[in-house]
Amino acid sequence: MMLIDEIKKRSVHVDAAIDELLPITSPEELYKASRYLVDAGGKRLRPAVLILVAEAVGSDLKSVLPAAVAVELVHNFTLIHDDIMDKDDIRRGRPAVHMIWGEAGAILAGDTLYSKAFEILSKVENEPVRILKCMDVLSKTCTEICEGQWLDMDFETRDKVTESEYIEMVEKKTSVLYAAAARIGALLGGASDETAYALFEYGRLIGIGFQMYDDVLDMVTPQEVLGKVRGSDLMEGKHTLIVIDAFGKGVKPAIFGKGEATPKETDEAVRILTECGSIDYVKNLAISYINEGKAKLDVLPDGPEKELLLQIADYMISREY
Amino acid sequence: MMLIDEIKKRSVHVDAAIDELLPITSPEELYKASRYLVDAGGKRLRPAVLILVAEAVGSDLKSVLPAAVAVELVHNFTLIHDDIMDKDDIRRGRPAVHMIWGEAGAILAGDTLYSKAFEILSKVENEPVRILKCMDVLSKTCTEICEGQWLDMDFETRDKVTESEYIEMVEKKTSVLYAAAARIGALLGGASDETAYALFEYGRLIGIGFQMYDDVLDMVTPQEVLGKVRGSDLMEGKHTLIVIDAFGKGVKPAIFGKGEATPKETDEAVRILTECGSIDYVKNLAISYINEGKAKLDVLPDGPEKELLLQIADYMISREY
Repeated sequence: MMLIDEIKKRSVHVDAAIDELLPITSPEELYKASRYLVDAGGKRLRPAVLILVAEAVGSDLKSVLPAAVAVELVHNFTLIHDDIMDKDDIRRGRPAVHMIWGEAGAILAGDTLYSKAFEILSKVENEPVRILKCMDVLSKTCTEICEGQWLDMDFETRDKVTESEYIEMVEKKTSVLYAAAARIGALLGGASDETAYALFEYGRLIGIGFQMYDDVLDMVTPQEVLGKVRGSDLMEGKHTLIVIDAFGKGVKPAIFGKGEATPKETDEAVRILTECGSIDYVKNLAISYINEGKAKLDVLPDGPEKELLLQIADYMISREY
Repeated sequence: MMLIDEIKKRSVHVDAAIDELLPITSPEELYKASRYLVDAGGKRLRPAVLILVAEAVGSDLKSVLPAAVAVELVHNFTLIHDDIMDKDDIRRGRPAVHMIWGEAGAILAGDTLYSKAFEILSKVENEPVRILKCMDVLSKTCTEICEGQWLDMDFETRDKVTESEYIEMVEKKTSVLYAAAARIGALLGGASDETAYALFEYGRLIGIGFQMYDDVLDMVTPQEVLGKVRGSDLMEGKHTLIVIDAFGKGVKPAIFGKGEATPKETDEAVRILTECGSIDYVKNLAISYINEGKAKLDVLPDGPEKELLLQIADYMISREY
């Protein structure tokens, strides 16, 4: 069973549902700006997690599709606003929303996706009590994403960040949306609160592993595969866990926070981070988070969906970019 | 029965509920930025409408308080993001949020209020079906507010705006939140969908009247009362209904879109807009919207709350600023 094919099979339905639930209506340019990044692709991993969990607990794709769309819209809303805040001008290989519609347009496009996500989630056909629980999960998650982004920006102004601060940031900025996707899939599928919480933990743990592995990829993946300059996190002075661990060992790569570096300087930085063990440390920690996450799937009956959720967890730390 | 006293009596509870439901927690600066404008005051008119409607249909303040807070937070979220987009640096007599925490901080502060509003609304103790209806109302309203702000920004780039375009913009940008407040109060209070819709119409109509009267105030209120330069809408080149009506009559004040004007030039602009009848036209139209809105209150039983809702409608077109 090929993971990519199985995700694709479901993302086709997600894309069709996006077309139906977020049509380009009036004012046309606002909706074009809102749809632009959504339509630029992305792996639709979060909707896939939500749908697979729902299927695993005995529900079906069709009945949770609006919820899967809601989670994907929240993801895209955060990317649009983050790109304004971080002054990132390229996203998914295309100009960021604010580069085309200006900052004001991008703020509004994000806000529109935000409210549409809640509007669409409230339209799921299911027991009101379950939908309300999902609303609570999604709104809390959005608050935590804001907190995570705030921490991330705050870290940029600091000389030192601890490992636990880093994990809190990653948990909030990245992993809670995976966690929410899994929990919402479980709740809508009629799982008990306990099962839903175990699946929340699955999403949270693999989300943390995902982000840690992202930091590793930044060090070891050639630019032609990664789509951005290797070592760019280092040059930007980001306190990734690799940097935090290396600093703790008294190792500071010369290119840290320098804004740019020659390939040779980057090689040297990677060499010293490898030698002091920091890259391996983070890689292994990512693997242990993934394994912990996979163990949470014990609450699910064996079957193809559980198998795919295990594969998604492994994918987090086996992907090339 | 003094309207201001009655609103104040309720806003004390709203403020206490804000303190409880949106505490300054970690990351502290994010929550300070989120609370800053909320704490700077404002008349709490929207919560008052929500609470009075709920009381009028037989519910009580306490049980709808979180919903009243949610509506106030949405209002403040829109102000924070609008001020970034419109580059307005002063709000409620204090520096705007983005002047203190930067644009990135203000984007996040707004986003946080947005998700908190939904989180808090999902916490209302009431029948799940009713709460879901309210969620649907609030999320749709937020989408419309985005559409209204987009239209408002779009109008600034245009030479001509029609009266119906103006009314659509005002309806979405300003009045739907009054409408939502009234409808949510009714729904949570257990009113029928029909009654809730009539009250939605009350809010919508008085909201439109409110904004039209705002445009009149900009022309006729001295700076020391209004808190901003008289005629500033004109100087900024805003297509208010007064301007739209005057343009239709072939009248174009010299200071329109000029960015600044002497008091004498402003007097002259007001004189010609008065003479051609445009100020009176808008004033009378505002009054007719208010009267139409008041008529919608016929669905309510007579009593002190209905009386206060009628007074709020009148206040929209009798206030000095």
